[in-house]
Amino acid sequence: MLNNMTNKINFKQLRLHSVLYNKNVINRSVLFKSLGINRTFSNCMKFYSRSKLDELIPKSEGFPSRHIGPREQDQTSMLDSLGFRSLDELSSKAVPDNINLRRPLHLDEPLGEYELIKKIRKIAELNQVWRSYIGMGYHNCCVPHTIMRNIFENPGWTTQYTPYQPEVAQGRLEGLLNYQTMVCELTGMEVANASLLDESTAAAEAMGLSHRHNKRRKLVLSKTLHPQTISVVKTRADSLGLTVEAGNIHEVDFSNRDIAGALFQYPDTEGNIEDITKVIEHAHSHGTLMVCATDLLALCLIRPPSELEFDIVVGSSQRFGVPLGYGGPHAGFFASRQSLVRLMPGRMIGITRDANGHDAYRLALQTREQHIRRDKATSNICTAQALLANMSAMFAVYHGPKGLKDIATKVHNFALLLSQGLKDSGNIICHKHFFDTLHVKPLMDLNDILERASSKKINLRYFNDGSVGISLDETVSHDDVSDLLWIFGCETSLEEYLEPPKKNPFLTKALFPLHAWTTKNIAENSDILSNSILKTEFKRMSQFMTHPIFNTYHSETRIVRYMKSLENKDISLVHSMIPLVYLDGANMNAQVGLCRPGDYGSDVSHLNLHKTFCIPHGGGGPGMGPIAVKAHLAPFLPNHPVIDLTGEEKSQSFGAVSAAPFGSSAILPISWAYIKMMGAKGLRKATQVAILNANYMSNQLKEYYKTVYRSPKSGLVAHEFIIDVREFKKTANIEAVDIAKRLMDYGFHAPTMSWPVPGTLMIEPTESEDKEELDRFCCALIGIREEIAAIENKQMDINLNLLKLSPHTQEQVMADEWNRPYSRIQAAFPMEFVRPDNKIWPTVGRIDDIYGDKHLVCTCPPILPSF
Amino acid sequence: MLNNMTNKINFKQLRLHSVLYNKNVINRSVLFKSLGINRTFSNCMKFYSRSKLDELIPKSEGFPSRHIGPREQDQTSMLDSLGFRSLDELSSKAVPDNINLRRPLHLDEPLGEYELIKKIRKIAELNQVWRSYIGMGYHNCCVPHTIMRNIFENPGWTTQYTPYQPEVAQGRLEGLLNYQTMVCELTGMEVANASLLDESTAAAEAMGLSHRHNKRRKLVLSKTLHPQTISVVKTRADSLGLTVEAGNIHEVDFSNRDIAGALFQYPDTEGNIEDITKVIEHAHSHGTLMVCATDLLALCLIRPPSELEFDIVVGSSQRFGVPLGYGGPHAGFFASRQSLVRLMPGRMIGITRDANGHDAYRLALQTREQHIRRDKATSNICTAQALLANMSAMFAVYHGPKGLKDIATKVHNFALLLSQGLKDSGNIICHKHFFDTLHVKPLMDLNDILERASSKKINLRYFNDGSVGISLDETVSHDDVSDLLWIFGCETSLEEYLEPPKKNPFLTKALFPLHAWTTKNIAENSDILSNSILKTEFKRMSQFMTHPIFNTYHSETRIVRYMKSLENKDISLVHSMIPLVYLDGANMNAQVGLCRPGDYGSDVSHLNLHKTFCIPHGGGGPGMGPIAVKAHLAPFLPNHPVIDLTGEEKSQSFGAVSAAPFGSSAILPISWAYIKMMGAKGLRKATQVAILNANYMSNQLKEYYKTVYRSPKSGLVAHEFIIDVREFKKTANIEAVDIAKRLMDYGFHAPTMSWPVPGTLMIEPTESEDKEELDRFCCALIGIREEIAAIENKQMDINLNLLKLSPHTQEQVMADEWNRPYSRIQAAFPMEFVRPDNKIWPTVGRIDDIYGDKHLVCTCPPILPSF
Repeated sequence: MLNNMTNKINFKQLRLHSVLYNKNVINRSVLFKSLGINRTFSNCMKFYSRSKLDELIPKSEGFPSRHIGPREQDQTSMLDSLGFRSLDELSSKAVPDNINLRRPLHLDEPLGEYELIKKIRKIAELNQVWRSYIGMGYHNCCVPHTIMRNIFENPGWTTQYTPYQPEVAQGRLEGLLNYQTMVCELTGMEVANASLLDESTAAAEAMGLSHRHNKRRKLVLSKTLHPQTISVVKTRADSLGLTVEAGNIHEVDFSNRDIAGALFQYPDTEGNIEDITKVIEHAHSHGTLMVCATDLLALCLIRPPSELEFDIVVGSSQRFGVPLGYGGPHAGFFASRQSLVRLMPGRMIGITRDANGHDAYRLALQTREQHIRRDKATSNICTAQALLANMSAMFAVYHGPKGLKDIATKVHNFALLLSQGLKDSGNIICHKHFFDTLHVKPLMDLNDILERASSKKINLRYFNDGSVGISLDETVSHDDVSDLLWIFGCETSLEEYLEPPKKNPFLTKALFPLHAWTTKNIAENSDILSNSILKTEFKRMSQFMTHPIFNTYHSETRIVRYMKSLENKDISLVHSMIPLVYLDGANMNAQVGLCRPGDYGSDVSHLNLHKTFCIPHGGGGPGMGPIAVKAHLAPFLPNHPVIDLTGEEKSQSFGAVSAAPFGSSAILPISWAYIKMMGAKGLRKATQVAILNANYMSNQLKEYYKTVYRSPKSGLVAHEFIIDVREFKKTANIEAVDIAKRLMDYGFHAPTMSWPVPGTLMIEPTESEDKEELDRFCCALIGIREEIAAIENKQMDINLNLLKLSPHTQEQVMADEWNRPYSRIQAAFPMEFVRPDNKIWPTVGRIDDIYGDKHLVCTCPPILPSF
Repeated sequence: MLNNMTNKINFKQLRLHSVLYNKNVINRSVLFKSLGINRTFSNCMKFYSRSKLDELIPKSEGFPSRHIGPREQDQTSMLDSLGFRSLDELSSKAVPDNINLRRPLHLDEPLGEYELIKKIRKIAELNQVWRSYIGMGYHNCCVPHTIMRNIFENPGWTTQYTPYQPEVAQGRLEGLLNYQTMVCELTGMEVANASLLDESTAAAEAMGLSHRHNKRRKLVLSKTLHPQTISVVKTRADSLGLTVEAGNIHEVDFSNRDIAGALFQYPDTEGNIEDITKVIEHAHSHGTLMVCATDLLALCLIRPPSELEFDIVVGSSQRFGVPLGYGGPHAGFFASRQSLVRLMPGRMIGITRDANGHDAYRLALQTREQHIRRDKATSNICTAQALLANMSAMFAVYHGPKGLKDIATKVHNFALLLSQGLKDSGNIICHKHFFDTLHVKPLMDLNDILERASSKKINLRYFNDGSVGISLDETVSHDDVSDLLWIFGCETSLEEYLEPPKKNPFLTKALFPLHAWTTKNIAENSDILSNSILKTEFKRMSQFMTHPIFNTYHSETRIVRYMKSLENKDISLVHSMIPLVYLDGANMNAQVGLCRPGDYGSDVSHLNLHKTFCIPHGGGGPGMGPIAVKAHLAPFLPNHPVIDLTGEEKSQSFGAVSAAPFGSSAILPISWAYIKMMGAKGLRKATQVAILNANYMSNQLKEYYKTVYRSPKSGLVAHEFIIDVREFKKTANIEAVDIAKRLMDYGFHAPTMSWPVPGTLMIEPTESEDKEELDRFCCALIGIREEIAAIENKQMDINLNLLKLSPHTQEQVMADEWNRPYSRIQAAFPMEFVRPDNKIWPTVGRIDDIYGDKHLVCTCPPILPSF
């Protein structure tokens, strides 16, 4: 049919109109109407490009065939086993007729990986990356390259799932425990969680905790908090029906005993460090919890919040080795007194013991969490930023306490130097005590400052009252300070006298570091260190991070080996199928290209990009969940106090929902690239294959396990299926957890356990797994079913059997003595496809969850399993 | 002293002069002389920058403390154990007094990692990356991102050593065997090696082989070879005393039976594909070997050289997934008839069996090689490009035969299309049969073509006779062909009519692929495929790469897991110390900063950058060995036929030594960055710590092993030391190889065995290993010494003991039956520091070298060890 149409087109005329269209002389619909073409644009594109040329240079299959696991011939045989002739036949049966989309999504022709990278490079070149001294909780930092490459860019870390199966997750659990320890040590608090989304949501969680703690309904915020924190806390408090007041914290009257919690920032958003011990005393004497938002780098030099008697401490660990990324992803931290631990939100790593009596890590106090406690959870937040928390923890491990103190000292002293230079040239520095941030009343006209800053491509924070904020960071050099001084009219700055060096800018600059003159002149002429925060009562006297973990891995060789040793303890997608996250895996995964929630009645849709749109799971974050609404709900979408997101709409927004206006924006290009490379056809096919894979597996397993919740009409499942293992409890004393642990011996990560239905396993194979891997996984489950049968038939003991004693560790299997009623090989190499060269060993035996929750330890020391 | 001088300086005057200096008004010596300063520049810099400022913003220790392993306090205790008070005291004793440099090297102040990256980015931004259609053996390609990230940028692959210890190197050995198989399959030859430096040196090796084969002294080259190949072959032939003639291969008279070998290129340097079967017959009938330089991508479509009866086939595998990198590194390949295998140069992987009777890979026929056979080696080449060969092999694994054929077809058809367009517009295409390269006599003036090409940032090949070469590649798009047609005056090109789209160039371009018009018009108007090479007698009829290894790993998930499974079989620096390369480790490693070969009499110095200057070993390449000479030898340095390297010197060069004028230039920034970040002080300290580490270990081991070749005067060793284990042969029947294999059970890669002294182990700890790792390694060697003592004392059997039966595999240690005279734990976990969570398992048992050489198999199938 398309060929017929092609013949009718007047190519010369189309070509002329194409030119006019590109020159913006005519618009698209004119272009096509003038040619008598009455169809969608993408269809038109198709038939004027379909021709002999396409035969000559066929479009390659490209990315979809790389992303989708089963090869064409495998798809055919899998469809065959289910009694279907095509993917379309299968999906039309799996998707109810009345919601079927019946047309391709409107997307551009897909790009190959090479074209995509070319394209995104060009787009990235349009970015102007200015030096940012805005502060407000975001600071540039030197990301150690070895951490960037070996964690951030390494699929061995990025494709890990949330560590719900601790026996094959000790690596990232150790990393996250290091994170908690680092936060506890720097803040001085007793317990910390393994990260939250960001500083502002962490603050909101803290305020929610205060309310849960003392049931009061009033919250007080210091007005010198970051504006986004005030906004996010208000949004969250509204939804809980709590009232919020922001003002001068010194003037708050706590004596009515109606204030749940008060939130203060130290150092505050203007950089000021002030003494509020009296306020804290006052608040405590009336039962109000005191919450501190703080900065980890500052705490290397100033007294930790614990010594000021704060109850909860929150903040962002971004400046510990995580790039700015236009707002995220970074990890927010949350620390508190031990007494509040059972009210704490978010994931927390704790130490427990395993079946061999060795120390082992696992998620502690999970009963607080949503996935177990549902609506009674301490918080409905299930966001952690595991990958970024691991990066920040590793930053602390790499630098150690001395390294961090050196960085903090450098930043602080540069701030002192800048302050002195600004004062010398007539500017007013508003606050006496600061760490890295100056609040400046400039001498010069603000417009001149703006112009000078722009000419240097420097971003500053401009307050409404004409004052200016400058936050320095780890990357600041003499050059930068020199530029800042020039912007504020400090005439000692020398750079401006110089023409650009003529021949080789690098050579000349390297030979002659003239920038040093500016800072040098200031330094020579005053006793700058006399103003240091270290000369005040705010000086930190207590030690931190004295644990060996922060005092060992300081050479590149050591840190690389440490990161690799952690990576190799964990199952990630670089090893085998994880039948629940992953590159793809949930929610929209059975729908993209086949049907759309908006079409069948939904007004609001929440997408999990890290599930359906390829953002890797990162060991439990970063995730990203955009919410799409129909037009009439647009005015109610979130807003932001710094960046106005409402456009021309008359906003009825409830406020900000996260610290950064665009969330974890740095990961969005992943989903964008995925969609660009898949195209409409590829996305639809991915969905179809996800459905095929799930149905294929369910069918292969049907004689061994009962799949629940099949469609009563078609007998099919969607992209996931649930097998019911409750009967084995009666017949063999085997529960879902035993099957999950035994799967590790077969080299697999367990599927989702007992969720959403207790006593079941939910398996989401996703479209990326190929037939061979699905077959292997089915074999493992069938093998396990036979092992259960052996118990049912009394061939195997009801307590001493392959499942109850799983997973099997090297220590057990290689012990000189072996007195189990099965062989070593049966234990560790239960199938032919489990071979020594691909065996994944759990590094600890089965975890004792109850012991750990009873004897809660949430910080290092990590004790290595000895032999 | 420096402080005193500082006081004398007139800072205002120095500042003024600094400005003048930077404006090029005065030069450096005037600047300093005018101030009465009579010393080196770097010293001056030191004292005008030493001031209060330095106290305020201290220079961080930076990179040297990351690179050098032992911490300061460890260095002190290690020095103490040797009886020295400082590194200087040690090194002044270790380095003979008369050659001691006694001053720092003249280098800039060192940069931190962050500044270095900023600096190199700025330098890189000065590069103009043009589209290159020059060809000549170098073609752009789409480097699959997953291979880039998981091999090329992954220290698990880049820090591997040459696989001399096959039991812990099965991963890279399998990768390299895939490479050999790929080369054999595409060329049709029976055997191939695991890569050489590049195509030209491979050709020179082939000609050398011809001479070794038939002892004749005359070589014949086709004049349509790449010019660099002709030059390199001539250089090498000169050194062997062979004569070389380049001319028309059809006119050569072989009947004198004095021609050792003849070298022909197919397709040739102009892109021409011609029939020389008659020449080959003629040559063979007179005992001359026929060598073919060829292109792997072309061989996907045209008849393989084996079917034309060539004896040897060489080329470059660069276009199989390796970036251009301004000339290298890439892998050259070398394939031949089975009958010539024992004369072949370079490393070759073969299949043999291990102690358990399983198949295993290892370096085959090592007796051909220099490190064993010395001056009687088949060649003195020990260069392989393992990392790049692995990338190319993985490219073939990822694409498979169909994928490669698709790429080749696309490139060829674009060439056909371009040829048709050029012909249609009056240009002359010189050759009828071509694959991807056109030799064009243009209609337009060459200057116009040059100007148009430059305006499009396109490089073409300009021949001396005014003709032009265009080589297309995998990355070519309709846009590119459209641009090329426009350059040659083909008026169907439409792009030029268009102004740059106004608002969003990406959006508009994506919506409306106008470039397709140009190519489309040509395609519509002629039967382009009738000129295809596939319609001629050159069409390849034989299948290739039918082995499962090339037909399985085509999805991203699969290839990532395959690469990771290979990586995890091997010991690299991410696991533990390899006491012989590595990041640093040889030659200049005991000298940098302490003494200089030029000072103590050497006229020529060869540096191994991959040893002393941080280029990682890559599993056996790429390496880089610049040669430094004194001024009087400069005219004799290598030249290049395309890029003139001689400058103004009157050259007495012997010609080119490698295909690319600057060698493997893409890896040079690694050494540059290392030197920039270390600085003079850091480099000197690295040398001193390398000497300290070696002496510390030698001293720790002195009661257990005899170190030979200590300095008779000082009793010290340099940066490496040799322990003599020959006595154990008599006392316990233990040889160096037994100790090497047993070290694997302890988690270590063996040191250099029996080189340069038979029956010894040469240990080079390097400065990057810290005290803890050195201690562990010493513990392992001491543990092994005790195991030898047990044999000497008859406590352990002379044949059935921990050393003779090492290394121990999982299969052995976990077998249900265990009947060895030692425990499983002793076998696999011989010391406390070898734990299940860090255990590195050899994936095969001890290799049987002799069996493999007797039953030579150098291509897949790789049979996976079954259990």
